[in-house]
Amino acid sequence: MTYTLAQITRIVQGILEGDPEALISDVAEIQYAQPGELSFIANPKYTKFVATTGAEAILVSKDFSRAYKNLIRVENPNYAFSLLIAKFRPQIPFPKPGIAPSATIAKTAKTGKDIYIGPNVIIDENAIIEDNAILFGNIYVGKESTIGSATIIYPNVSIYHRCQIGNNVRIHSGAVIGSDGYGFIRMEDGISKIPQEGGVVINDDVEIGANCAIDRGTLGNTVIGKGTKLDNFIQIAHNVKVGEYCFIAAQSGVAGSTQLANGVTIAGQVGIAGHLKVGEGAMVAAQSGISKDVAPHTIMFGYPAQEQKKARRELISIRFIPEIRERLKTIEKELEILKQRK
Amino acid sequence: MTYTLAQITRIVQGILEGDPEALISDVAEIQYAQPGELSFIANPKYTKFVATTGAEAILVSKDFSRAYKNLIRVENPNYAFSLLIAKFRPQIPFPKPGIAPSATIAKTAKTGKDIYIGPNVIIDENAIIEDNAILFGNIYVGKESTIGSATIIYPNVSIYHRCQIGNNVRIHSGAVIGSDGYGFIRMEDGISKIPQEGGVVINDDVEIGANCAIDRGTLGNTVIGKGTKLDNFIQIAHNVKVGEYCFIAAQSGVAGSTQLANGVTIAGQVGIAGHLKVGEGAMVAAQSGISKDVAPHTIMFGYPAQEQKKARRELISIRFIPEIRERLKTIEKELEILKQRK
Amino acid sequence: MTYTLAQITRIVQGILEGDPEALISDVAEIQYAQPGELSFIANPKYTKFVATTGAEAILVSKDFSRAYKNLIRVENPNYAFSLLIAKFRPQIPFPKPGIAPSATIAKTAKTGKDIYIGPNVIIDENAIIEDNAILFGNIYVGKESTIGSATIIYPNVSIYHRCQIGNNVRIHSGAVIGSDGYGFIRMEDGISKIPQEGGVVINDDVEIGANCAIDRGTLGNTVIGKGTKLDNFIQIAHNVKVGEYCFIAAQSGVAGSTQLANGVTIAGQVGIAGHLKVGEGAMVAAQSGISKDVAPHTIMFGYPAQEQKKARRELISIRFIPEIRERLKTIEKELEILKQRK
Repeated sequence: MTYTLAQITRIVQGILEGDPEALISDVAEIQYAQPGELSFIANPKYTKFVATTGAEAILVSKDFSRAYKNLIRVENPNYAFSLLIAKFRPQIPFPKPGIAPSATIAKTAKTGKDIYIGPNVIIDENAIIEDNAILFGNIYVGKESTIGSATIIYPNVSIYHRCQIGNNVRIHSGAVIGSDGYGFIRMEDGISKIPQEGGVVINDDVEIGANCAIDRGTLGNTVIGKGTKLDNFIQIAHNVKVGEYCFIAAQSGVAGSTQLANGVTIAGQVGIAGHLKVGEGAMVAAQSGISKDVAPHTIMFGYPAQEQKKARRELISIRFIPEIRERLKTIEKELEILKQRK
Repeated sequence: MTYTLAQITRIVQGILEGDPEALISDVAEIQYAQPGELSFIANPKYTKFVATTGAEAILVSKDFSRAYKNLIRVENPNYAFSLLIAKFRPQIPFPKPGIAPSATIAKTAKTGKDIYIGPNVIIDENAIIEDNAILFGNIYVGKESTIGSATIIYPNVSIYHRCQIGNNVRIHSGAVIGSDGYGFIRMEDGISKIPQEGGVVINDDVEIGANCAIDRGTLGNTVIGKGTKLDNFIQIAHNVKVGEYCFIAAQSGVAGSTQLANGVTIAGQVGIAGHLKVGEGAMVAAQSGISKDVAPHTIMFGYPAQEQKKARRELISIRFIPEIRERLKTIEKELEILKQRK
Repeated sequence: MTYTLAQITRIVQGILEGDPEALISDVAEIQYAQPGELSFIANPKYTKFVATTGAEAILVSKDFSRAYKNLIRVENPNYAFSLLIAKFRPQIPFPKPGIAPSATIAKTAKTGKDIYIGPNVIIDENAIIEDNAILFGNIYVGKESTIGSATIIYPNVSIYHRCQIGNNVRIHSGAVIGSDGYGFIRMEDGISKIPQEGGVVINDDVEIGANCAIDRGTLGNTVIGKGTKLDNFIQIAHNVKVGEYCFIAAQSGVAGSTQLANGVTIAGQVGIAGHLKVGEGAMVAAQSGISKDVAPHTIMFGYPAQEQKKARRELISIRFIPEIRERLKTIEKELEILKQRK
């Protein structure tokens, strides 16, 4: 597929500074882009590549200040570029509707229209698979669980009993939904297990990364709110409620019964202790450890985490210690001299 | 099922303060409980919900000081409540004994009585599955491995060759038992792999969370002691010995050849370096990094971890630095004035 | 199999100090070794076991200074011992070539000579499995993906479409290759997904641990360089390039578009932020958080990480704060006295 820059400018609703007849046949990252390819700059770190890129044209923000032969200015270069990826790089088609002969589907399960059930998928008793759902191979769906319409489940996902997966959800390989919450009591003569009889509710438009684990609730449900996106290796413990449109980056964990409000952003390798509330729109920097409630719209950082500015000030203050010790030494000497004076 | 408070008080061996005839038909968390429902308070953070809960009755500790219409005092409210969950919320039944036709069982494998082998399970040569074991679907059990009696293995678990899983063990989905230890030697011309020819021994009553990985030993076995409970995403490296009745919370890792004694408690996202000993009953706070041996019954915290009190004192001491710098400035000024004096 | 110490000395190209006729029938760790068994000491922590071990002989370094009845001095005791493990502990044989009847292989897939395809393996359209590859059970290989020759893939691995796995690669159970990169844009009315249409390239001789996740690139490929060894639970985000012969220990993560040069060593639970460069031969200590580019051959430590010496100096400096405060108090008192003087 080839487009002129004029056509592309219309697709992304941008403003072209350059040659409307220039031809674009692919998209590429700025450091690798060649003539005929369109690229973008969203992160200022990549501005330096303007000097060396072979790109035919670059999508940039409204206030981008470097010159280039063909620039298309847009509100959000990242978003505009994502629209063009879909144009130039058609995704590999999903499997067509059908049910593999090696799938094991309980008689009491209900399956909707135009679904795909791949090889070796197991659908247990009274489970429901709604219209247009796609279940790749080697997946397990437990008793009384529901998979919403147009939801895509990649290979080797395990969904325990009584879990509700909404519509347009994507669950990547190796994810586990509905495993027992980590509920145990240390007794004098051993350890007693607390039954975990709640479920998991994953609302519409959620994406769950590879090898995540979302434990079932003890009594009620563990809940992931609409539109929330989990990266890989996310641990969501029992009874956690994650709000709508949250981001949680790779290898982060949320301990039992904690609640994240809507629009929360958690960076990678963050730990959030149990029984806490994280307010709407709050952000947590990578590797932070949250041990107290977080107010809405605050940015947290550190271990244990504090409001980011405070945490950074403390970190910087440590660097003054050698200087402080030098000054103390000087003061002590001078004081000694003064004391000797008559 | 409905019980009177008098009946419930007998079940939990508690002391009732309230109406013995009040009827209970379900259990619920304190913040959501409605009339007819029984709840509990174990964590003081939840005491505030006494003012707003609709619970018919609350299980509390012997010394709980807030008033409520119906209280049942018990030794351990958490444990008492767990007994009632089992009464009011009967778990979904496990599959009945049987072997799915799609299972692949080697002729040399031995299978006990009343076992369940789900669809697509693979039992490799000379493996042994003991009586009453339950293996959900899509599980792999390698050559010469043993699954003990009444052990439950959830879908998509991988157990390599020569691993011994005890009785009454639970292994949640996505867990990997017996993968090669991370043993490599950097050589001048590349990297050489150290053969990993030991095994894994998981003793009775262990629970292993979703997506854990327990590597096989190099020569001897990696061992998980009786009754130990691993949360999700636990990394147990080769040759590690974990004692009996330990807790290891989510996303923690224990590096090669380290030994945990009995009754150790490790919180989430902790890292323990290799070749160390962690003493009996020791506790490690979340996100800590253990780089030295830990004495029995100590509480460790921080990165690198220290005895908790010391670590907290250090953390707090950092907050004094700005004040220290202010005081230094004042002193230096005053000193200057004194020096000017004749 | 039994060898004399003379024979063993030849195998490891060492220098024997002891009885060349002594017989060795097995290898063992130094703390457990018995008569007739050969052990080794590579880590000085284990030198103390010389006093108590029952080992017939010990492999040690050229400059090992403790006396023992039979010592074999070698350049690299760890490596020499690994050669002997292979002699004394023959590994369990890999499955013989063959294709399980329960495997699902697309007609358009190409399969080489002498391959093993285990039960319930799914090979999707246009995938290629090269000669001598071994695919254990319950594996998924997506459309147009390639598995190189003599590569071993353990059970329950998921390989998405358009991933290229090289020759002599090992991928342990639960690993996910080619899941979507975590590319989303927060918009005013929700979250927009960036298509992830690149692939993954895993070069020859790589080993990937249990439950790793390597996301596909957005446009180009995520790349793991030749001979690199990943431990368990490694997160490799989209567009990351890992160089040749790198080590990445368990539970570490590399965020999007970051580049690791050749010979980098990353310890456990490390986080590396996105869009960074880590120079050749650099090392990162456990649990560190890398937020800036790392120069070649530097050692980084801490959160946020700094050059190790600097980081350690800072850590130590914190311990001086209580002393600093004491000295300040003394100075202030003395100053007061001096000020009172006439």
